Amino acid sequence: MKTFIAVDLGGTNIRAALVSEDGQILDVKKDKTEAQLGKEHIMEKMESLIASLDGYKDALGIGLGIPGPTDTVNGKIIISNNLPDLVGYPIADHIRNHFNKPTFMANDVKVAGLAEALLGEGKGKKNLYYLTISTGVAGAMILDGKVLSGFHGHGGEIGNAIIDPSREPINGLNPGAAESWVSGPAIVREANKACHKEFAHAGEVFEAAKSDENAKAVVERFKEDLAILLANVCFVCDPERILIQGGVMKSGSDFLEDVQERMRKYLFPGMRETTLANATMEESGLVGAAMLAKSQMED
Amino acid sequence: MKTFIAVDLGGTNIRAALVSEDGQILDVKKDKTEAQLGKEHIMEKMESLIASLDGYKDALGIGLGIPGPTDTVNGKIIISNNLPDLVGYPIADHIRNHFNKPTFMANDVKVAGLAEALLGEGKGKKNLYYLTISTGVAGAMILDGKVLSGFHGHGGEIGNAIIDPSREPINGLNPGAAESWVSGPAIVREANKACHKEFAHAGEVFEAAKSDENAKAVVERFKEDLAILLANVCFVCDPERILIQGGVMKSGSDFLEDVQERMRKYLFPGMRETTLANATMEESGLVGAAMLAKSQMED
Repeated sequence: MKTFIAVDLGGTNIRAALVSEDGQILDVKKDKTEAQLGKEHIMEKMESLIASLDGYKDALGIGLGIPGPTDTVNGKIIISNNLPDLVGYPIADHIRNHFNKPTFMANDVKVAGLAEALLGEGKGKKNLYYLTISTGVAGAMILDGKVLSGFHGHGGEIGNAIIDPSREPINGLNPGAAESWVSGPAIVREANKACHKEFAHAGEVFEAAKSDENAKAVVERFKEDLAILLANVCFVCDPERILIQGGVMKSGSDFLEDVQERMRKYLFPGMRETTLANATMEESGLVGAAMLAKSQMED
Repeated sequence: MKTFIAVDLGGTNIRAALVSEDGQILDVKKDKTEAQLGKEHIMEKMESLIASLDGYKDALGIGLGIPGPTDTVNGKIIISNNLPDLVGYPIADHIRNHFNKPTFMANDVKVAGLAEALLGEGKGKKNLYYLTISTGVAGAMILDGKVLSGFHGHGGEIGNAIIDPSREPINGLNPGAAESWVSGPAIVREANKACHKEFAHAGEVFEAAKSDENAKAVVERFKEDLAILLANVCFVCDPERILIQGGVMKSGSDFLEDVQERMRKYLFPGMRETTLANATMEESGLVGAAMLAKSQMED
């Protein structure tokens, strides 16, 4: 059985796992990142976590899932609020040299999308777009089993895509940026304004929309805005399926279908076989990091 | 020297060429399509044009550039106003069997983009987006030397992408569709309305904008709309360069630079090395059809 090492590096925790080629997690270890202690500390911690995995020596390669935009060619972090000391540091080179194994690195949303594409709801499909809708909005294109990071490592950063330029910019994003309108916090913000309430999360807004016309209007606009974003993705790259991660889409049984219907309305008739699906895989971050190594080594 | 056969099938004319692997056209033949005479007639004409090319027997493969959405896997036209009788007909299979050579087919905008990407202003770059702005607006993604057609053959049909949902739909396209606002006819329509004149083409509007404030406002909005479209493409796939074909962008020396500046303003700071370039290649349709065969045979 071929195995790969996966690392999920976050601002709070680092996790390392040994993953089989079919995506089974065989062993997993976790520790605090303690980012404030500096890059050498983080790198040593990552290395000792990997070395503590049962059977790590037999793994064929290593995949690293990293938050924020990533220079996948040189294996470096480009921008990071949580791991500032690691920006520009050759993380992948360091790990590669230490373990003498092929090592690859990509953004954590992208590796999660790769796992969903290869082993989850995208299995068997060649042309996919993955989208996470939670506090933030980001995505990834997965073509022929490989995740596309783009020239600057920003491919899929569609949270800042403009869905309606006539709306005011919010939090430094573009006017009418997707993340300002189709994220969890956006739904809560708009519903609080419309209903004069203090909703705790998007789920409460969806619940309220069943009986409150103002909450319903917010949810309707959310669906419409999301449909525009998805249709625009389809015009750019015409995926077979769009995988959507995050609790928002699971809030009602017909929710996904409704958004799909609205999206298709905007597409040319010949493009309407594109489906939406909820991304349901557990541990897609860890499994995806392993699949990153696997997919890159198949070149 | 390796050679490939290129066919440019249009509603009015069919052209066939023998093209060297570095994109030199060695021989070219042309005839009327006479689409009204039916598919057998068109296919026979295509075959005799190919067979009339000097050295066609030595060509390694055949590439077909076809108007409208194309099923690249099965080598069929999906939709066509000009060639209705060929819709659904297995064109590529037919040509492949007739000449016993590997045969590939893609949309004409996509093969032109491929030529520009491989041999024109995209040469040496791995991640490109190609865009034609003339009567219509359409594009193509070119990754690692291959053109992406998408699941339904509609990848790059960004003429119907929504740049501002608050605008009225025009000609059956989406509200605020790119083609309704950043095409040649759109510029003329808006300038005629703003200036109470009858401009003949977009070039006249650009000329008028030097002295007429109303024409200038139309041009400014065009640039801004185009910048939004391009920024959204960047968020989806983060290309290194966007190649723009069509006379509109060549209307002034600082035009391209101005749109590039506006586009970059919408991008995250880490994404601003993406460049715009005018696509300048002659005969990109024919050369691209040959490059389609070459690129697909390199798999």
